[in-house]
Amino acid sequence: MSSTAAAPAAPSAGPATTVQVYDTTLRDGAQQEGMNLSVADKLAIAALLDELGVDYIEGGWPGAIPKDTEFFARAAKELDLRHARLAAFGATCKPGALPAEDAQVRALVESEAPVVTLVAKSDVRHVERALRTTGEENLRMIGETVRHLVGLGREVVVDAEHFFDGYRFDPDYALRCVRTAFEAGAETVVLCDTNGGMLPDWVAQVVGEVRAATTGRLGMHAHNDSGCAVANTLAAVAAGAGHVQGTVNGYGERTGNADLLTCVANLQLKLDTPVLDGAGLAEASRVAHAVSEITNISPYGRQPYVGASAFAHKAGLHASAIRVDPDLYQHIDPTAVGNDMRMLVSEMAGRASIELKGRELGFDLSGRSELLGRVTQRVKDAEAQGYTFDAADASFELLLREELDGRAPRYFEVESWRTFVEHRPGRDGTVDSEATVKLRTGHGRMVSTGEGNGPVNALDHALRAALVGTYPEIEDFELIDYKVRILDTQQGTDATIRVLIETSDSVRSWSTVGVGTNIIEASWEALTEAVTWGLLHHGVEPR
Amino acid sequence: MSSTAAAPAAPSAGPATTVQVYDTTLRDGAQQEGMNLSVADKLAIAALLDELGVDYIEGGWPGAIPKDTEFFARAAKELDLRHARLAAFGATCKPGALPAEDAQVRALVESEAPVVTLVAKSDVRHVERALRTTGEENLRMIGETVRHLVGLGREVVVDAEHFFDGYRFDPDYALRCVRTAFEAGAETVVLCDTNGGMLPDWVAQVVGEVRAATTGRLGMHAHNDSGCAVANTLAAVAAGAGHVQGTVNGYGERTGNADLLTCVANLQLKLDTPVLDGAGLAEASRVAHAVSEITNISPYGRQPYVGASAFAHKAGLHASAIRVDPDLYQHIDPTAVGNDMRMLVSEMAGRASIELKGRELGFDLSGRSELLGRVTQRVKDAEAQGYTFDAADASFELLLREELDGRAPRYFEVESWRTFVEHRPGRDGTVDSEATVKLRTGHGRMVSTGEGNGPVNALDHALRAALVGTYPEIEDFELIDYKVRILDTQQGTDATIRVLIETSDSVRSWSTVGVGTNIIEASWEALTEAVTWGLLHHGVEPR
Repeated sequence: MSSTAAAPAAPSAGPATTVQVYDTTLRDGAQQEGMNLSVADKLAIAALLDELGVDYIEGGWPGAIPKDTEFFARAAKELDLRHARLAAFGATCKPGALPAEDAQVRALVESEAPVVTLVAKSDVRHVERALRTTGEENLRMIGETVRHLVGLGREVVVDAEHFFDGYRFDPDYALRCVRTAFEAGAETVVLCDTNGGMLPDWVAQVVGEVRAATTGRLGMHAHNDSGCAVANTLAAVAAGAGHVQGTVNGYGERTGNADLLTCVANLQLKLDTPVLDGAGLAEASRVAHAVSEITNISPYGRQPYVGASAFAHKAGLHASAIRVDPDLYQHIDPTAVGNDMRMLVSEMAGRASIELKGRELGFDLSGRSELLGRVTQRVKDAEAQGYTFDAADASFELLLREELDGRAPRYFEVESWRTFVEHRPGRDGTVDSEATVKLRTGHGRMVSTGEGNGPVNALDHALRAALVGTYPEIEDFELIDYKVRILDTQQGTDATIRVLIETSDSVRSWSTVGVGTNIIEASWEALTEAVTWGLLHHGVEPR
Repeated sequence: MSSTAAAPAAPSAGPATTVQVYDTTLRDGAQQEGMNLSVADKLAIAALLDELGVDYIEGGWPGAIPKDTEFFARAAKELDLRHARLAAFGATCKPGALPAEDAQVRALVESEAPVVTLVAKSDVRHVERALRTTGEENLRMIGETVRHLVGLGREVVVDAEHFFDGYRFDPDYALRCVRTAFEAGAETVVLCDTNGGMLPDWVAQVVGEVRAATTGRLGMHAHNDSGCAVANTLAAVAAGAGHVQGTVNGYGERTGNADLLTCVANLQLKLDTPVLDGAGLAEASRVAHAVSEITNISPYGRQPYVGASAFAHKAGLHASAIRVDPDLYQHIDPTAVGNDMRMLVSEMAGRASIELKGRELGFDLSGRSELLGRVTQRVKDAEAQGYTFDAADASFELLLREELDGRAPRYFEVESWRTFVEHRPGRDGTVDSEATVKLRTGHGRMVSTGEGNGPVNALDHALRAALVGTYPEIEDFELIDYKVRILDTQQGTDATIRVLIETSDSVRSWSTVGVGTNIIEASWEALTEAVTWGLLHHGVEPR
């Protein structure tokens, strides 16, 4: 809640009545395999997180990672945070050293972040084997580093690393770490399930015991190695934690961190704990997708609350009931998280789901029983041939319009096309792909040739080259995904092949499908439907 | 456990001491957006599930879905299940009708599945609004349908749909549904969180109350809409459920079902509940990946336990400590689920798994440290380019032999190849595919042209035509499966493409892999390796 971040509550005993939301996408999330964020990426994500209404944004480890040092320098000038406080992550001072003399601690201060989050070891085995010092020295390092930073006016959060494993091994030592941090002035001590192996009942027990044995705000930092990161976070809150850490889209090392948006949605929509203001949660789907765009990691369709499939229904069985009573078939109203109910047109498609799908696409088919019957039959026939419309809304819409208007929109007439791939003698390893398309528009006959990395890429280039003179709008269209599926795997290369193509105009994206025994023919069908749908939705009339 | 499936325990009160594993990948998992399984796919997945050691495999809904009717017919003849029992899913009889007169119930009996799982409504709002009948009539339908099937010798499982929402709305009615099912002879009543919105504490409370109020085996069926499917399943088991349902890779409608392998791993490795025999869980990663190949849905790297990233550590801070003391940095030993710890500078292959794989193929590599190092490096380099050897043993063997013998076996030298696909004017809908291959064997230079349904099929025909004079053995080789995967989905048709080909000589089958930005080039690589491996294993010397 806003008030919490602006003026953190004083340490209190007993279960927390408010829960702080601490985002670590930019630090722990960036440990995700394949993620590599630039400073500009980090600034853009921070701005999105602030819009969402989180209380803290952990920006990175200044001093240790040069890019993160730069992030804090630019954030101080460029970011106008309305709600969130920036946190710099770092370690306690080294064994045998004073915080004031430790370059790494100095870099935390110099980052000018108002909040400093210190990782501290709380499992005595890690202290001895990884840090190679004594338990007592580790306590000194925690206490002196916290006191030093509090003295410099920083709000200090302590991330007690490997806390749960440590507590289960030696509860007294783990508790001494927590008490030392609070006594030195830490605002919050976060209990970290660093290896991610905890289960909710274990978390509830440990947090409950620590809650009873200490005062001060406790936090939870979960990883998803047991598939329980969200549940572990909720268990910690129920046991008295007043601060939750996580990442957008659950990014993070190994199986990832707790998915922050899922945690927040559960707390706010199911447990009546208003952690973001209402408008914030309604932005959740948009922010999750925008962050995916920046990280360039494909969104996970099955992601709870914000995933593209999260409110998508396939079963024909329930379609008629869903139409009458949507609340009986969804756990929350999807608009609460900025998502939408979606009907998938599948082989179990009945008239009711076709009607619902039509409504979703902006066509009122209610009462048009004869039309619905025709469309349902066409969908079933097409699916028997291998088409699938649940992943190809644009192709479904073209089919529907054809039945509504009596004919499909025709922007061009294809005369012929060909494509070839050649590995020539004497050119070791070089393979050429080329395609030629001949077609007609109202502007005349066009013959164009394209080259590419492969036959479909060459065909895509040739088709665009043939059309761009008549329809310059297609310059904005970009083929962003191409999927191939062999439908009958018992016949090798003779089998039926389905191609799904996703096209984008940088505002929206749409999917089309093509089917044939020939992969090129199937790709051609999906390519031409993609162009047709795109032109139609740009309001272009056939020229 | 084996004994549980072979002879189900009698209904008992109190917490379950054994937990049955019930897989619904082929039925509820198939509701996943974009999934479309053929009967052959389903049979292949069922065989994998049986290897894993699950107790039940729900194959589909015979009678309602023609493909599922065929699945049960073929399964009875073709599947030799060692452990699992097949379950046919269906509904109770219709309002006002008798089970014996209900075509849908008859189809369940005719499927000859030894287990029938009946979906039954237990939320009175769904009974009235979706089923449009009375609560009493619904109870009659449940009782009579269960009794009918038990009378015909079937083991009956009842899936109590929308149970948790129903119980929280009207506990008495929901409980009457459970009791009616047990009284009619149901072996198990499964409490379903159909909308997926439950949280673990809520599940624990409801299951605990139902456990106290009834006798008989209770099960749990969870969906992941709150991100808590796994935790909800564990909470149900802790509260007395003795049967868990889920799907491989968490496939399913919306956010998916409970990920069965995660549930099983948690139960077995963390909660000392041995649900599969030990060898079964060690196959978990292989089965999860093999099922991904069949469904052609990209594996999710962050998947708990079996994901490619699940035990992957970014090198840096902890690298040396991890090497010394891996157990301090991982929640379980990854080999327990057939996975591997991985440092992210390297790819998945370790020397130990290469050595193991070699042994499986008949090569003793123990003690050949330098050779193992070379092969491991080549596999890593190839995997970085997009190759995968998990599903391409024959390609891996060729690579291994090349390192063992110093050169690859060469049956022919390729001079050039080309393929084209053409849609010509005036021949509406007809597409020609043709390929020409020029190569040399000891018998001289061969130039052959092949036609086909598509460019790869034409290339396959041309390659055989060029070789058959020299190597008549290839007449027996048949290409039986062809799979394409786009590896980088952010670049449309410019992306890297992986082709997997399975070839058979009617005695055995073998798989080869090719990778490239060009689908034809990748296919050519896999085709030529398939011929090479086949000739090698027919004991043919280069001619």
